[in-house]
Amino acid sequence: MALSGKTVERLSIYRRLLTVQGFSGEDYVYSHDLAEMISGTAAQVRRDLMEVGVTGHSKRGYRVDEMVAKISELLDQPGGTELVLVGAGDLGRAVLGFIKGQRTAMRIAGAFDNDPTKIGCLIHGYRCQSIDALEDVVRANGIEVAIITTPAAGAQEVCDRLVAAGVRGIANFAPTPLQVPDGVWVERIDIATALEKVTCLTRAAKAFAGSDK
Amino acid sequence: MALSGKTVERLSIYRRLLTVQGFSGEDYVYSHDLAEMISGTAAQVRRDLMEVGVTGHSKRGYRVDEMVAKISELLDQPGGTELVLVGAGDLGRAVLGFIKGQRTAMRIAGAFDNDPTKIGCLIHGYRCQSIDALEDVVRANGIEVAIITTPAAGAQEVCDRLVAAGVRGIANFAPTPLQVPDGVWVERIDIATALEKVTCLTRAAKAFAGSDK
Repeated sequence: MALSGKTVERLSIYRRLLTVQGFSGEDYVYSHDLAEMISGTAAQVRRDLMEVGVTGHSKRGYRVDEMVAKISELLDQPGGTELVLVGAGDLGRAVLGFIKGQRTAMRIAGAFDNDPTKIGCLIHGYRCQSIDALEDVVRANGIEVAIITTPAAGAQEVCDRLVAAGVRGIANFAPTPLQVPDGVWVERIDIATALEKVTCLTRAAKAFAGSDK
Repeated sequence: MALSGKTVERLSIYRRLLTVQGFSGEDYVYSHDLAEMISGTAAQVRRDLMEVGVTGHSKRGYRVDEMVAKISELLDQPGGTELVLVGAGDLGRAVLGFIKGQRTAMRIAGAFDNDPTKIGCLIHGYRCQSIDALEDVVRANGIEVAIITTPAAGAQEVCDRLVAAGVRGIANFAPTPLQVPDGVWVERIDIATALEKVTCLTRAAKAFAGSDK
């Protein structure tokens, strides 16, 4: 199924609203209620849900448990996804805490750093390992997804090593673009750019109507 | 000037490549070199630069100092932007460290939390204050931009308080959508969704050609 990245993003948010936030505990939800929570339209919500094979009831709306099950079928790998994380600084710690605290189907197979003072430390229950062990852990566990939370300077080298060891998807939190071969998916989470964007567009807001809510 | 959010994102990345990364130290850069770094096209780079009023030389390319000056004119407020940050957990700490470490025109006017064990602590040189002081600091400094790094549960209330005190732009790192009145810009940085997206789309990668690099 060729879902767009934007559709996957919205489905991820619907699921969170239906499980841990707003609508958790409800049996049925209307598309317009979900739409209101994400500042979108009911038609968009219905299209997204149709894409994962959920149909609503004209009077009662959508069954919450059916929506959650169908979205999870799409988003989650059966048995969960194992990831590695490289870069155990503040941001790496935040992401590790995040994965630990969320009810997601993700598990950390290894957290790595090149700083000898960090290696061996426990971070949110994960033991930080030497970057020297990266390829071995990736290959031994058949890891396909990695998180890069290094500074900009080391990110491309880490990326190249991950890809050579078999990684096919990277969440890149380092503030630099990564170059990867075809067939590798990079999701960029660029805090520096996000902050510059919000300060710039807030100033320019008079000229703007829309917003990414 | 009605620049799109995507254009602003790319300009932010060009500037970083031209100042602290890849091309820092160069006098001239070609559009195709910049394009290669961001896995984009030279035509796109030229359109973006035209939007901020930079023109290239047919043989030598674009002057780096001129590009940086023109992009900075657009992205940075004269005198810099003062921000507040609410939520001094791992993620708040990471963002504070980020702002401190980058050469950006942003300054933190206050970092806030509701956890008594955090209030009074120094985080990357910023003193964490009680959330009770939020409105006073925002109003006294005329703050228009805020960063929310709270858990999902408290984010909407913090958002409402910020907006009531005069904030017009929010970088939302809390894993929940925010509802704001018209005229307020929200930039969402959703780590949970980004991670779910990369795990889902890596699996589906066979059906995909594109990627957000």
